Amino acid sequence: MTTNFPVDSVGLVTPQIMSFDKPLRLACGKELAAGYEIIYETYGKLNEHRSNAVLICHALSGHHHAAGYHKEDEKKSGWWDNYIGPNKPIDTNKFFVVSINNLGGCNGSTGPTSINPETNKPYGSTFPIVTVEDWVNSQARLADKLGIVQWAAVVGGSLGGMQAMQWAISYPDRLRHCVAIAAAPKLSAQNIAFNEVARQAILSDPDFLEGNFQEQGVIPKRGLMLARMVGHITYLSDDAMGQKFGRDLKHEKLNYDFHNVEFQVESYLRYQGEEFSGRFDANTYLLMTKALDYFDPAAKHNGDLATTFAHVNASFFLISFTTDWRFSPARSKEIVDALVAAGKNVSYLDIDAPQGHDAFLMPIPRYQEAFTTYMQRIVI
Amino acid sequence: MTTNFPVDSVGLVTPQIMSFDKPLRLACGKELAAGYEIIYETYGKLNEHRSNAVLICHALSGHHHAAGYHKEDEKKSGWWDNYIGPNKPIDTNKFFVVSINNLGGCNGSTGPTSINPETNKPYGSTFPIVTVEDWVNSQARLADKLGIVQWAAVVGGSLGGMQAMQWAISYPDRLRHCVAIAAAPKLSAQNIAFNEVARQAILSDPDFLEGNFQEQGVIPKRGLMLARMVGHITYLSDDAMGQKFGRDLKHEKLNYDFHNVEFQVESYLRYQGEEFSGRFDANTYLLMTKALDYFDPAAKHNGDLATTFAHVNASFFLISFTTDWRFSPARSKEIVDALVAAGKNVSYLDIDAPQGHDAFLMPIPRYQEAFTTYMQRIVI
Repeated sequence: MTTNFPVDSVGLVTPQIMSFDKPLRLACGKELAAGYEIIYETYGKLNEHRSNAVLICHALSGHHHAAGYHKEDEKKSGWWDNYIGPNKPIDTNKFFVVSINNLGGCNGSTGPTSINPETNKPYGSTFPIVTVEDWVNSQARLADKLGIVQWAAVVGGSLGGMQAMQWAISYPDRLRHCVAIAAAPKLSAQNIAFNEVARQAILSDPDFLEGNFQEQGVIPKRGLMLARMVGHITYLSDDAMGQKFGRDLKHEKLNYDFHNVEFQVESYLRYQGEEFSGRFDANTYLLMTKALDYFDPAAKHNGDLATTFAHVNASFFLISFTTDWRFSPARSKEIVDALVAAGKNVSYLDIDAPQGHDAFLMPIPRYQEAFTTYMQRIVI
Repeated sequence: MTTNFPVDSVGLVTPQIMSFDKPLRLACGKELAAGYEIIYETYGKLNEHRSNAVLICHALSGHHHAAGYHKEDEKKSGWWDNYIGPNKPIDTNKFFVVSINNLGGCNGSTGPTSINPETNKPYGSTFPIVTVEDWVNSQARLADKLGIVQWAAVVGGSLGGMQAMQWAISYPDRLRHCVAIAAAPKLSAQNIAFNEVARQAILSDPDFLEGNFQEQGVIPKRGLMLARMVGHITYLSDDAMGQKFGRDLKHEKLNYDFHNVEFQVESYLRYQGEEFSGRFDANTYLLMTKALDYFDPAAKHNGDLATTFAHVNASFFLISFTTDWRFSPARSKEIVDALVAAGKNVSYLDIDAPQGHDAFLMPIPRYQEAFTTYMQRIVI
């Protein structure tokens, strides 16, 4: 059946949808009405003792399709196919992997593009603000439905790493390992500032129509494009951009006008923005940036991260990348220091990689080896 | 008369306008029609030998009003008042200081908001693209008119530093010292990328009207605001933003919505964007970012900066700031290395400062002392 796919691929996968019959109480004080849905994929098999389940949490623009292919003739695999599959770091011969799309998303889980049962219209901007804590609670309900009492590991990069951390804090007995890659214990002022630029780009787009653009059959394309462009710059290192584009020209010589693209990097950014604006929901983008901004588990403990981690039982594995300036190695070290101060099990690796924040998605030998070694040691 | 102003201020100043009766040939191949004007201010007195003149070149959103006050009751002084005045680093007891607004600007020199004599309408987007080389040529014509054959020094920060460097290259005999602060020999791909986001924000604003908004009586306010917000983030260091705002909330508690500002840093950025969009011209902003992008004096010498500097006669003083990530110390060191390789006189200082790129505007003791010492040694 899947002979067309690489041998280390999970092959053809079919997303599944789980519906929940109780409302979900959210951090913002609102409730998500009963009937909300979470779309997810699974790779590998749940073992008899249900002890080999791994949860994958996605980052800002991610989704449930982390590995494999949706169609026989598909060229593009899931977003973390480099790390999930037979004999890959998250080895599907060993683990039963669950990958979800978070609530508020735009890839199949209930979100702003879904129909609000109370109004029979798309939620749009009325979709409630969801936080990392809310997501973890919703993921715990999914685990209940799947009969997974305890995850072997909860794993994520960037915003996904924040969810993994929140799992260890919110449900200390429901995971044995927390793998947080290129993450931070909370956003810095600069991180929030970049998110705010992205939000203002969307909110100020005349086609945003206060978030109800879907009903009007339009898309705030300009705003989404700008949001993605500015985001994209922060995902790459200065070095990576320099190596990839430098000051290479798009045409043979300079045009000295605003209509033509002069430099390759401009062309690349515009393409990234254009492509993204055609596939991502603006309200979801707003929600995801807010979830990032609000994440600050230590806030409940007067900013003391060690106290925040006092009751966690999971062992931690943290990875950072040298050229990541969105969530720099120093941010991972804050987490490591707090875990050490709290007397917890923690392994930490700073990977020398030129790719910046995006490195967490890339096949980097030392990262692959260390990740493989850690996951192999997990007892199931 | 000026007793209300601080004793180390140049006091009340009146801008002057110089008109030029020959067209200016530009790097883009076009000509700026005869009759174009440059607004400028002067501080101090030109000495008998005309050997004490210092030219101040401004950065992206700067202008001619670098020091002193325009009105008796004014609270806000010129943008570089920390560094220009009696007994200040650029000591007006010693130097005759000339500060201009560049062509393409929106503060009095001929630019997109000026009337195009050929059409009797504002230039708008038809104003030709101007480069750092063009500016330096236009500044040389102003020097001619002022009877300044050779500047004691040409001084600038950021884009202003690039103009100072270009002076040394284009007119090796017309300056004795080049002071380039927080500059770079050319933009990196990341620098260009940030400029491109700013440009797209403006160009995609429906009120931009292809650059002819002035005729229609509108302003692309949203685009300018976004451009300034993203620019502003790059002017400050992550640390500076952290120290200034951290994660401080605007209100006592979180609101969990998109209408209220949650964090102080969001409020600050929006204010900066709003304020800027009310006082700066969108076409000028586009032109300034393009001048930055195009600056690459070594391009004519196969990228070899040392060869580019082979014929300069000026002594150089370069200053960078440790936390500047827009034009990092490494960028200044590229210039230093090339000057050393070319066997030129160069002094370089990396100043430990938390403020990021904006440090070049701030009163920082070591910076002030070093700058003062260098300027004092200049023989007039």
